[in-house]
Amino acid sequence: MTDQGERAQEGHRIETDSMGAIEVPADRYWGAQTARSLVHFPIGRDTMPRPLIRAIGILKEAAARANMELGKLDERRGEAIVAAAQEVRDGRLDDHFPLRIWQTGSGTQTNMNANEVIANRAIERLGGKLGSKDPVHPNDHVNMSQSSNDTFPTAMHIAAAEQVVHRLLPAVRALRDALAAKAEAFADIVKIGRTHLMDAVPLTLGQEFSGWVAQLDADLARLEASLPAVYELALGGTAVGTGLNTHPEFGERAARHVAAITGLPFVSAPNKFAALAAHDALVQLSATLRTLAVSLTKIADDIRWLGSGPRAGLGELILPPNEPGSSIMPGKVNPTQSEAMIMVCIQVMGNDAAVAVAGSRGNLELNVCKPVIAHNVLHSLELLADACGTFREFCVEGLEPDRQRIQQHLQSSLMLVTALNPLIGYDKAAEVAKKAHREGSTLKEACVALGYLSAEEFDQAVRPEAMVHPG
Amino acid sequence: MTDQGERAQEGHRIETDSMGAIEVPADRYWGAQTARSLVHFPIGRDTMPRPLIRAIGILKEAAARANMELGKLDERRGEAIVAAAQEVRDGRLDDHFPLRIWQTGSGTQTNMNANEVIANRAIERLGGKLGSKDPVHPNDHVNMSQSSNDTFPTAMHIAAAEQVVHRLLPAVRALRDALAAKAEAFADIVKIGRTHLMDAVPLTLGQEFSGWVAQLDADLARLEASLPAVYELALGGTAVGTGLNTHPEFGERAARHVAAITGLPFVSAPNKFAALAAHDALVQLSATLRTLAVSLTKIADDIRWLGSGPRAGLGELILPPNEPGSSIMPGKVNPTQSEAMIMVCIQVMGNDAAVAVAGSRGNLELNVCKPVIAHNVLHSLELLADACGTFREFCVEGLEPDRQRIQQHLQSSLMLVTALNPLIGYDKAAEVAKKAHREGSTLKEACVALGYLSAEEFDQAVRPEAMVHPG
Amino acid sequence: MTDQGERAQEGHRIETDSMGAIEVPADRYWGAQTARSLVHFPIGRDTMPRPLIRAIGILKEAAARANMELGKLDERRGEAIVAAAQEVRDGRLDDHFPLRIWQTGSGTQTNMNANEVIANRAIERLGGKLGSKDPVHPNDHVNMSQSSNDTFPTAMHIAAAEQVVHRLLPAVRALRDALAAKAEAFADIVKIGRTHLMDAVPLTLGQEFSGWVAQLDADLARLEASLPAVYELALGGTAVGTGLNTHPEFGERAARHVAAITGLPFVSAPNKFAALAAHDALVQLSATLRTLAVSLTKIADDIRWLGSGPRAGLGELILPPNEPGSSIMPGKVNPTQSEAMIMVCIQVMGNDAAVAVAGSRGNLELNVCKPVIAHNVLHSLELLADACGTFREFCVEGLEPDRQRIQQHLQSSLMLVTALNPLIGYDKAAEVAKKAHREGSTLKEACVALGYLSAEEFDQAVRPEAMVHPG
Amino acid sequence: MTDQGERAQEGHRIETDSMGAIEVPADRYWGAQTARSLVHFPIGRDTMPRPLIRAIGILKEAAARANMELGKLDERRGEAIVAAAQEVRDGRLDDHFPLRIWQTGSGTQTNMNANEVIANRAIERLGGKLGSKDPVHPNDHVNMSQSSNDTFPTAMHIAAAEQVVHRLLPAVRALRDALAAKAEAFADIVKIGRTHLMDAVPLTLGQEFSGWVAQLDADLARLEASLPAVYELALGGTAVGTGLNTHPEFGERAARHVAAITGLPFVSAPNKFAALAAHDALVQLSATLRTLAVSLTKIADDIRWLGSGPRAGLGELILPPNEPGSSIMPGKVNPTQSEAMIMVCIQVMGNDAAVAVAGSRGNLELNVCKPVIAHNVLHSLELLADACGTFREFCVEGLEPDRQRIQQHLQSSLMLVTALNPLIGYDKAAEVAKKAHREGSTLKEACVALGYLSAEEFDQAVRPEAMVHPG
Repeated sequence: MTDQGERAQEGHRIETDSMGAIEVPADRYWGAQTARSLVHFPIGRDTMPRPLIRAIGILKEAAARANMELGKLDERRGEAIVAAAQEVRDGRLDDHFPLRIWQTGSGTQTNMNANEVIANRAIERLGGKLGSKDPVHPNDHVNMSQSSNDTFPTAMHIAAAEQVVHRLLPAVRALRDALAAKAEAFADIVKIGRTHLMDAVPLTLGQEFSGWVAQLDADLARLEASLPAVYELALGGTAVGTGLNTHPEFGERAARHVAAITGLPFVSAPNKFAALAAHDALVQLSATLRTLAVSLTKIADDIRWLGSGPRAGLGELILPPNEPGSSIMPGKVNPTQSEAMIMVCIQVMGNDAAVAVAGSRGNLELNVCKPVIAHNVLHSLELLADACGTFREFCVEGLEPDRQRIQQHLQSSLMLVTALNPLIGYDKAAEVAKKAHREGSTLKEACVALGYLSAEEFDQAVRPEAMVHPG
Repeated sequence: MTDQGERAQEGHRIETDSMGAIEVPADRYWGAQTARSLVHFPIGRDTMPRPLIRAIGILKEAAARANMELGKLDERRGEAIVAAAQEVRDGRLDDHFPLRIWQTGSGTQTNMNANEVIANRAIERLGGKLGSKDPVHPNDHVNMSQSSNDTFPTAMHIAAAEQVVHRLLPAVRALRDALAAKAEAFADIVKIGRTHLMDAVPLTLGQEFSGWVAQLDADLARLEASLPAVYELALGGTAVGTGLNTHPEFGERAARHVAAITGLPFVSAPNKFAALAAHDALVQLSATLRTLAVSLTKIADDIRWLGSGPRAGLGELILPPNEPGSSIMPGKVNPTQSEAMIMVCIQVMGNDAAVAVAGSRGNLELNVCKPVIAHNVLHSLELLADACGTFREFCVEGLEPDRQRIQQHLQSSLMLVTALNPLIGYDKAAEVAKKAHREGSTLKEACVALGYLSAEEFDQAVRPEAMVHPG
Repeated sequence: MTDQGERAQEGHRIETDSMGAIEVPADRYWGAQTARSLVHFPIGRDTMPRPLIRAIGILKEAAARANMELGKLDERRGEAIVAAAQEVRDGRLDDHFPLRIWQTGSGTQTNMNANEVIANRAIERLGGKLGSKDPVHPNDHVNMSQSSNDTFPTAMHIAAAEQVVHRLLPAVRALRDALAAKAEAFADIVKIGRTHLMDAVPLTLGQEFSGWVAQLDADLARLEASLPAVYELALGGTAVGTGLNTHPEFGERAARHVAAITGLPFVSAPNKFAALAAHDALVQLSATLRTLAVSLTKIADDIRWLGSGPRAGLGELILPPNEPGSSIMPGKVNPTQSEAMIMVCIQVMGNDAAVAVAGSRGNLELNVCKPVIAHNVLHSLELLADACGTFREFCVEGLEPDRQRIQQHLQSSLMLVTALNPLIGYDKAAEVAKKAHREGSTLKEACVALGYLSAEEFDQAVRPEAMVHPG
Repeated sequence: MTDQGERAQEGHRIETDSMGAIEVPADRYWGAQTARSLVHFPIGRDTMPRPLIRAIGILKEAAARANMELGKLDERRGEAIVAAAQEVRDGRLDDHFPLRIWQTGSGTQTNMNANEVIANRAIERLGGKLGSKDPVHPNDHVNMSQSSNDTFPTAMHIAAAEQVVHRLLPAVRALRDALAAKAEAFADIVKIGRTHLMDAVPLTLGQEFSGWVAQLDADLARLEASLPAVYELALGGTAVGTGLNTHPEFGERAARHVAAITGLPFVSAPNKFAALAAHDALVQLSATLRTLAVSLTKIADDIRWLGSGPRAGLGELILPPNEPGSSIMPGKVNPTQSEAMIMVCIQVMGNDAAVAVAGSRGNLELNVCKPVIAHNVLHSLELLADACGTFREFCVEGLEPDRQRIQQHLQSSLMLVTALNPLIGYDKAAEVAKKAHREGSTLKEACVALGYLSAEEFDQAVRPEAMVHPG
């Protein structure tokens, strides 16, 4: 790579930026700044995720449309930019976005990558020469009325919102519905409850599932409540939030175009200074994903414990056997979907920790941890959406109760003694339970032996099926 | 301490529970289970926080009132319980709550501590003998229709909601208003912007403050949005969520009493299984506190950097000198309020990490990480409320601009060149800036020397005060 | 409080610092800077922990001794400072250290609190007037050759090292030994293993315990390996690490005195710039405490699951019943020590998250998150030490196996089929296990029915007691 | 996909496992269990990282060699397995490892993926038919003496150790050396120090760099100290740690082969129960990476602040301009390497949070969060190694001081007053500094005006170059 050379190597062409000339592969639309980033940031293998590239395509189209409306961009250039931006949006130019997350903290290099690709593709459409910046200049035309500082956070918001709405919410809703269907199907199965992992008073298996449904219902509500702040776009703020070099209507108009393209209710952020310098809306979204992960961990963990065994565990649920569980223990079936879900949730917790630190490190007019925030939020969204899908399909929908085992556990429980509290008081009831435990007897035997109730009175009082709802 | 002895040591009395007898100090209302917890859990020094004890007092009164209404508790006992619970609520019995956070994960021992204290205090009021459980039994009367498993999360929600509403929200609002007042006062001070910590295009000092105000506005909205879920109370679920041993109306009635006592819109949780087994509402509240901490870190950090110097820093803000800053460097003044605020925010991030892990570790019918969740959420609430207060009073309200320094920075900035983009294009503008930087000259000199604009054209184009809003 | 008044209110006296006069309570040794901190930092209730105050006493004595040796401090003043510092060390002046964690990030106010208290106490000993700074000045004499910037991190290291050596290591060792004793006692109890929570091949209960012992052995080694870096002291660096205003030998001499007083091998940090500006040694110590917490979580969680039941859980261990487990379910016994331990470990994870963020936020010559680091590291140390003690005494030492249940689980296990792999291969062995599972039969029945082995061959091959070690 | 079909679709073949038949692409070596995993775990895009696949190749070769030595595996099969495993090791079969991180928590599916690929490749080499399991069976031969439960953690340790030794340590050492070279080069540049971001007493620029060198020296030592535990391998433990179905010498022999192949001192873990059920060694390694990230954040952040400006910042360092900094502000140069480094460090903090939670969630004989631990540890290792490289090459090596600016800051500093403490005491020195600050004068003017020193005395006392080391 050289900045000086006028002649490019075989298979390459020369691109230039304000720092000089640099070679790029002839079959790529990107330009000098993308090429420089490839040199300076060969860090890891995490490239900008597809939903973010798509979002940049969307906003570049929206910006071009707003600029045309406002008479700042002529139609010829504008339409060529729109067409190229749509190719970016639709994934047809993904191979031209090679840059990594680990670059400048404003995402400038990826914004320039998009400007360069769209400019060159538009130039090509208009019959110009790649790299000539004529008739479409990456900064002056494609980036018109914009700065990386407002485009990149705009793309972050568009990408996150689309993933929440189109991928995560449907997946969580479907999982919630699958659990609700089981809650209904198992509504009449009375079983032992467990608190502190210890035998406790009974509930129905349906009630147990209903708690998980209630958790996911609340998660869905929280996710939806997190969206309005994500619908606010930074576009129009340009470099520091003042909107320098934009038309006063640009921000609003561009947001309206983004809304039209996506079908989602995006608006222009009311305060652009905060929109560039802080990412609290995404920090909160990430936290809300973490709360979902907290719920899902509980659910997946409960299901695997209830399915533990088959002979020396709790064994109350039968998990669908999807694959051989062990490379050494033949015939073993493991709760693999629960395990994958829990690992995903752990990753979401880690991703969220990164987002929070990144969100707290803004300085003055700009937060320069934008790519790491985008990376982690989008990673969490993808993992949660996918894992909800497989967990639902390959675990929840196939769950069956082991009625015999459930009945056995219920019958043997000493905690049915709790039903005696209103009759003989806590202290005597405790005496009954302890005696039965000590002697390995049933509660009835112990209670009658202690003379607190007759066998008939006991049977009348201790009816598990009557203990699963209030008095 | 002995379980066997019938005769207590000097200054002690005998209390009993289902495990036997144990001594307690004669001047304390607590009973056997509290005494056992003191023996088994001498871990650290974190005792149950005051807001939680208050909340238990509130809910014990509410439960007693609901039980009386439903005819389960006679008025004599009931009113004595109410009176004792009110003393707990009002902090008059705080010395009788010695237990630590680090105990059973259901908070049972603290629920029993309350039951014992209220029972003994009620017994005393009714002329009975401490420890006799007559006429008021800690389990059968004070804990009537309840279990630790529903009372403790109820107390967690009451305490958290009260702290949010009565302490945190007012403190954040006052801080927000103090910043907004400065934003208005500094609305006309044009200054250099900084992105990537580097000189950038100008904005006003008021705009800079407005970004912080916008962050706090969003935080206030998020905090308010987190409350409805916290207003949902577990009472009525008893041991596993089924409501065993309660009247069907108990949960609703008790919640209504809590609402009446606190003046806050508490309701009965729609699904009690989730209310006992998961604490997602508090996980989300904690996360929302963390987002506030993220915002406050940004604000406090910006203020200290803007106040850095006085001679070799940015020096654009003058911070109020509250105290000598150094034990060795005489005359030094430091941004101590920013530092305290940032440390508080870091603690909130740590507390929140603990809450998330705790929230994810529920099993089956009960999450047994309740005390650690309560501890961290209430700790974060207290620290944030207090720190917002001192930061506002001793830092923000006293901030003054150093107008001379601000002007000096603005004038020297090379990034004013950005105003030339629409006139001469990005590439030539970059050439101007680089030339000025290389030669240590002004932008005007460089621009004129390059022949891109006349001096007059330059002056017309580059007017900082015109650069702080869209074209 | 007033800065102007020459006359103090009843019960108060006037103290002054470089900012002027301020009242302090007459019965307190602290001075003006402590008083100012109380005004400006009424944040929360976390005061500087005892081990840190002790450490400041130690270092003030060490500094005074070094200053005397180097001829910078006369013996009369020096010995008075030493005597007062020893009172601080021994906890006799704890009531004179009211300041909170949430103050200036250098801990300057607490360093000055110590300087003021020691100066006034020394003045008193020498017959002077409190607040007169004569003959002992808090800055010029008590703080001689020091700055908050080197004393506070020195105190952090002393406090942390003492807590590791004197509290945590003994507690972990005792817990490790208690587990090792059980490992030996249970060496011959063959039981079912569980992987993925599912029935797996057998091991002995002693082997299960031995894994926990191995974890703690590694934790002990890691903790010891973390100490040398903590033994490095910042003293001698003064304000920015250069050692301005110190004698070249001061740092080494002071460290030697600290070593002599504590009996621990403290040394002077080789690079004082890093010692003031970064706290990586404590970040690593905190991380090592977190690894311990990770181990302890595993151990405590395993023990409670193995003790779950008594009738509808795993039930292989019998946990000591220390207290009634439920306020509503009579006779219930819960794994409360495991729960307290797990909550402690979760807190340690949260504390550690705070330490890492705090550690990463140093700027230039100083990290100003010192108090929050000290707070969290010392909190974690105290909680872990205490919890290891109670967990050992009230849980581990009382653990007993339920041999009958263990035997029952072992016999019923389908995974004993793994012993057939070397004989009939994985695929046929899987067929046997699946058949037995499907038909509810024994492995032997299935194996013989399939014609793979005779009953005798099966019995010879499948001997659980032979499966707990290699071939 | 169908389990029943005997005839495969065009371009596919039939593979079978204990669950039945399933199609796989004809040009892939994987078998039925890999195919099933692809169906059940289409979660995200994170596949098993290359270093882990390499490690599995290494251990499969080692296991085959040990089995041959012990007479359990015939040479024909054994050598074919060795050859195929070497292809896996060398990356020649990477396209045959399609499975994701988010699968069973034991990594069983990836272990089976390796068993299947190696078996089929060995079969091919021996002239057999793919999918026939003859003459090489994936479980009975390739996985001989192994279980996923011991191979997967073995691979995790091998991969982590290789990445630490071959990638991270050299990168950190080179960065450390680059900083040390600058420390030496800048040893004589006296500059103002900054504490609390405020002007403080002077030090040399070389001293400032030396602090960073000291941090990295300690990090290098910590990383090396973390290795011995990572060198301990689980191989030989098989399913639950007992070593069932292995020869007693297998573990030791296999570890010796791994050591021979890698040239690193791997050994057999002394306690295999802990080696399967816990991953504390990797938790600690991850924490140590986090401490490195904490150090690097401090260094990268300091460098960008020292390079801030060029005109309205600190401006003491000149950062190499690698690329245009802004898409809207022409001529802007940003500290992009610092930003990338800080984002990497934030990611490492997030990854580490995930590792700790994953590490704490082992149950009984197995931790089933293995893949998520491997993923995050290896991700952190890769990012840190790469970022140290680019940060060194494109930032540190090009750093230059702005001597004029440094001198200007130094001269103007009021904190040079500290040099007067030993002469006139802290209180009078404070008075001098405050007077100079209030009046905008020099310290000398103020000191002389107050009559504390003559001009000559002042000049003698206040010599910045004498203030950068002890008395």
